[in-house]
Amino acid sequence: MQSMPIDTTSAVPLYAQVEALLAANIESGQLQPGTQLPPEDSLIARFSVSRTTIRAAVQNLARRGLVEIRRGRGTFVSRPKLTQELSGLTGFVEDMQALGKQATARLIDKQVLPATEAVAEHLKLEPGVPVVRIRRVRLADGVPMSLDETYLPHEVGVKVMADDLEVDPIFTLLEQKYDLPLTEADYRLEAIAANSDVAVALCVPLGSPIFLVERTSFCADRRPIDYERLHYRGDQISFVTRLARRRSQSI
Amino acid sequence: MQSMPIDTTSAVPLYAQVEALLAANIESGQLQPGTQLPPEDSLIARFSVSRTTIRAAVQNLARRGLVEIRRGRGTFVSRPKLTQELSGLTGFVEDMQALGKQATARLIDKQVLPATEAVAEHLKLEPGVPVVRIRRVRLADGVPMSLDETYLPHEVGVKVMADDLEVDPIFTLLEQKYDLPLTEADYRLEAIAANSDVAVALCVPLGSPIFLVERTSFCADRRPIDYERLHYRGDQISFVTRLARRRSQSI
Repeated sequence: MQSMPIDTTSAVPLYAQVEALLAANIESGQLQPGTQLPPEDSLIARFSVSRTTIRAAVQNLARRGLVEIRRGRGTFVSRPKLTQELSGLTGFVEDMQALGKQATARLIDKQVLPATEAVAEHLKLEPGVPVVRIRRVRLADGVPMSLDETYLPHEVGVKVMADDLEVDPIFTLLEQKYDLPLTEADYRLEAIAANSDVAVALCVPLGSPIFLVERTSFCADRRPIDYERLHYRGDQISFVTRLARRRSQSI
Repeated sequence: MQSMPIDTTSAVPLYAQVEALLAANIESGQLQPGTQLPPEDSLIARFSVSRTTIRAAVQNLARRGLVEIRRGRGTFVSRPKLTQELSGLTGFVEDMQALGKQATARLIDKQVLPATEAVAEHLKLEPGVPVVRIRRVRLADGVPMSLDETYLPHEVGVKVMADDLEVDPIFTLLEQKYDLPLTEADYRLEAIAANSDVAVALCVPLGSPIFLVERTSFCADRRPIDYERLHYRGDQISFVTRLARRRSQSI
């Protein structure tokens, strides 16, 4: 790690100098993503500054998202989030392939359940009719990224249940095996706190920020065929898109 | 509030019956959004069930997002989130008008600062050159919705700083007063935890889920003119969009 001397005669506060040096080390890759920052005592010795100064510098790095302070475990260099395009209807495996990541899945459970009001509304069914729910953890290069709850109408759902859901993406099964090409999807995006199911499945603390994607995918004649609740780890992913200004929006 | 008798001979567990009755009361509007749920003792008397049963029912309602348990204050019927279209570049005032809400702003501060690396990169400037930062809380019908950090290049920024930023939307100033019509914007969407600045400004607990919209708006010749970090309350807003399946995405 770089250890340029601190300039005690500078007008720049000491904590800001330490912060800038550590940030430069992170940006240059001398401090690698996921590694632990040296302990406070070692930073105090290296920079010849007080504990208060080191703490202020590290707090600022945490606020900038460059490091993560994990209670009782130390401070770690943040991993940059995956950046996913939000420009077309794509499944998890397609998204991860586009990012050069290996996508895998761990099946939690699959069962036939009566449709709740929300599920029925999205799949245009009567509440209480049987639907299939499939729950999987989706991983990228072995890191849990998302807890996916998939709801399918009973007829196609029971067929999909019999497939190998740790190997075949549901989109691929629907489109290629069951001849139900998808046309489009309605998305709802929210930031929520991880409840206990989500926290356990994704190995994050209870209450961690979750990027929830609620998605209803349609096939021909705008028939809803797949309703999903995708709970993405907020610390692992960001979504990007580009939107145009419409002239009529000027006020 | 509806108080149908509980069927102790049913195969449906008691807590699920209580949960279903309370959920029906919420969905029918007999229990209004924002109001407090009756206290446990009153629910125990009304349904003639144990405290454990009431607690299990309420926990499940909380998990479904129908109620919010606020420590030390009681349990409240959730307010539905505002739903905002993510289909074109629009400002906060335009968005709230589309939803029939009164948009107001509270100015926190406005100052000239050296551009950080991130700000410089988004505005295509050199790091360290002066830029203008404006911080405002945006409210809808008096409820804090978002903490907005706006960064503007120095030349136009110092003009905007002199305007009444609690009255005039920055998009309107840029487009109509300074003749800089916006053409499009790049968006980055993330779920993060509220830090202390954000928590205080939005009146939410530290660590609450925040829907962060990072947005760079462009004017003619794709010149970046406005870089914003919009910290929306996760409990107040959701974003919706529709995306088409592209044939080439099938794998």
